[in-house]
Amino acid sequence: MKGLYCDGSSIRLRDDLPTPIPGPGEVLLRVRIAGICDTDIQLAKGYLGFQGVLGHEFVGQTNTGRRVTAEINNACHVCPVCLDGRPGHCPHRTVLGIVGHDGAMAEQVVVPQVNLHEIPDEIDDREAVFIEPLAAAFRITEQLDLHPGLKMAILGDGKLGMLCAWVARTTGAQVSVIGKHASKLALAGEAITTHRLEEASTLAKRFDVVVDCTGSHSGFPTALGLVRPCGTVVLKTTVAGTYTVNLAGIVIDEVRVIGSRCGPFPKAIAALVNRQVNVRPLIGGEFTLDQAESAFRAASEKGARKILIQVAPESA
Amino acid sequence: MKGLYCDGSSIRLRDDLPTPIPGPGEVLLRVRIAGICDTDIQLAKGYLGFQGVLGHEFVGQTNTGRRVTAEINNACHVCPVCLDGRPGHCPHRTVLGIVGHDGAMAEQVVVPQVNLHEIPDEIDDREAVFIEPLAAAFRITEQLDLHPGLKMAILGDGKLGMLCAWVARTTGAQVSVIGKHASKLALAGEAITTHRLEEASTLAKRFDVVVDCTGSHSGFPTALGLVRPCGTVVLKTTVAGTYTVNLAGIVIDEVRVIGSRCGPFPKAIAALVNRQVNVRPLIGGEFTLDQAESAFRAASEKGARKILIQVAPESA
Repeated sequence: MKGLYCDGSSIRLRDDLPTPIPGPGEVLLRVRIAGICDTDIQLAKGYLGFQGVLGHEFVGQTNTGRRVTAEINNACHVCPVCLDGRPGHCPHRTVLGIVGHDGAMAEQVVVPQVNLHEIPDEIDDREAVFIEPLAAAFRITEQLDLHPGLKMAILGDGKLGMLCAWVARTTGAQVSVIGKHASKLALAGEAITTHRLEEASTLAKRFDVVVDCTGSHSGFPTALGLVRPCGTVVLKTTVAGTYTVNLAGIVIDEVRVIGSRCGPFPKAIAALVNRQVNVRPLIGGEFTLDQAESAFRAASEKGARKILIQVAPESA
Repeated sequence: MKGLYCDGSSIRLRDDLPTPIPGPGEVLLRVRIAGICDTDIQLAKGYLGFQGVLGHEFVGQTNTGRRVTAEINNACHVCPVCLDGRPGHCPHRTVLGIVGHDGAMAEQVVVPQVNLHEIPDEIDDREAVFIEPLAAAFRITEQLDLHPGLKMAILGDGKLGMLCAWVARTTGAQVSVIGKHASKLALAGEAITTHRLEEASTLAKRFDVVVDCTGSHSGFPTALGLVRPCGTVVLKTTVAGTYTVNLAGIVIDEVRVIGSRCGPFPKAIAALVNRQVNVRPLIGGEFTLDQAESAFRAASEKGARKILIQVAPESA
């Protein structure tokens, strides 16, 4: 079959990939559409050394014609961590298109049956491809008590930053997005305050919660400067390599720092069905699977919005 | 009056210090005894640039003869942070013997009346000098839900490490102390497991909560290695300067990091009255105020226990 293959340091469209064979408890899906995430761009450059088909944001179709997507952590479900209720942290897990499991930028993909979520008719493919990153944004609502009046800053005006801002706004929190790009900040919408990054120094210690969505080494120190004493910094983006950072302020101001990764698919699906979040303005372009390498170049451009890869949009 | 003065880079016993004059809401105390904290040793070397009398762990006596100690953060009580219930984080605060306010290693000291705590007769001076650091250890119980069965590691076998271990043990948590010194680990007591630091790599991701009490740059990365996914690292000691650390694990494992500073004096006093915690084994030596410079040398020795400075033990 055809698919976008990462050899651990670069990507290439191949048409000689074996059709994946579902193991016990797994299901074979035809892929309809996939999205390119910043993690994919890092993986394509060698982050984590992943070798295989990329793609963890997708819509597939079962052999009975149901449209589905899938959670990305493939857990063993029998180890102490799984039995303790944290399969997303299973030490034996593979991760779709990221660690040890071929992803969805191909004609077909295999995923565990238990990871499937059916996509309601109210959500079209282009929106549904955002379910995975939108779920990641909703993870924050599981980790923190967001509520009306809470002063939140989202640091970074990229796709994940906007999703986090919109999700935070659904809780009634007062949300500010702080970013570099006027054009991207303009997407935030009326209910959200925006600031250019240059203004950050005038906002010192103003926020109860700061979410770092920058994907940059400068994000964490900036976030520590924005959060109030006893406030919370959420680290939402992984950054490869080491940070150099002064942590004395975390102790003196008793700041909390929380790492945040994958989140609840049902909440993301509900938010799309109920039109609480409109992801369409985040779409930056569409390519076919044959154009997947071009799609990655487009996604890698500075300030790119979400690039979609239409694999089999017409499949019945 | 006589007192131990820090000029911002070194310390000197002086007998020409002016007797402090209490301002509105303040009270003048005769000092009975003071303890040397690792922060004092850092201050004496120039940390924070403090100029003044050192000392924030002490027992004093009012002019009516009551034995008292005092919380160390002198807040304004009128700013938004104070009115929001966090006077310990008042941006206008001074800190006894640390920031902008003379401390207790002198014959007399001035503190805010509202910061006073009377010392019950069941607690003698040598124990009472531990109220401030013991309260800091109890701060963890305000920030986290410690409970029977919780697996906790205290990283660092110094004085604060032991106080944190003993406080954690009062909650029923399963407590392990991980440290460098067999002689200091031996103080932990029977209900607490001890490990040498070399064994830390065999304990990877074992603990629900890890408390970094090392005061060392290596503490935080070691703590991140010991904590389980979705577990908590408490940063209990400030370390001057910058860290170089890989934070991707915080996101991937969704670890929480919490800074922890000053704590509840009433809980510390109750624990000493009720004999839940026995601080006496932590005492390493006693000096007079005239010997204060020698006391600092003793407190600076590797592996030193708590050094006390008897200022006026016999005062009536």
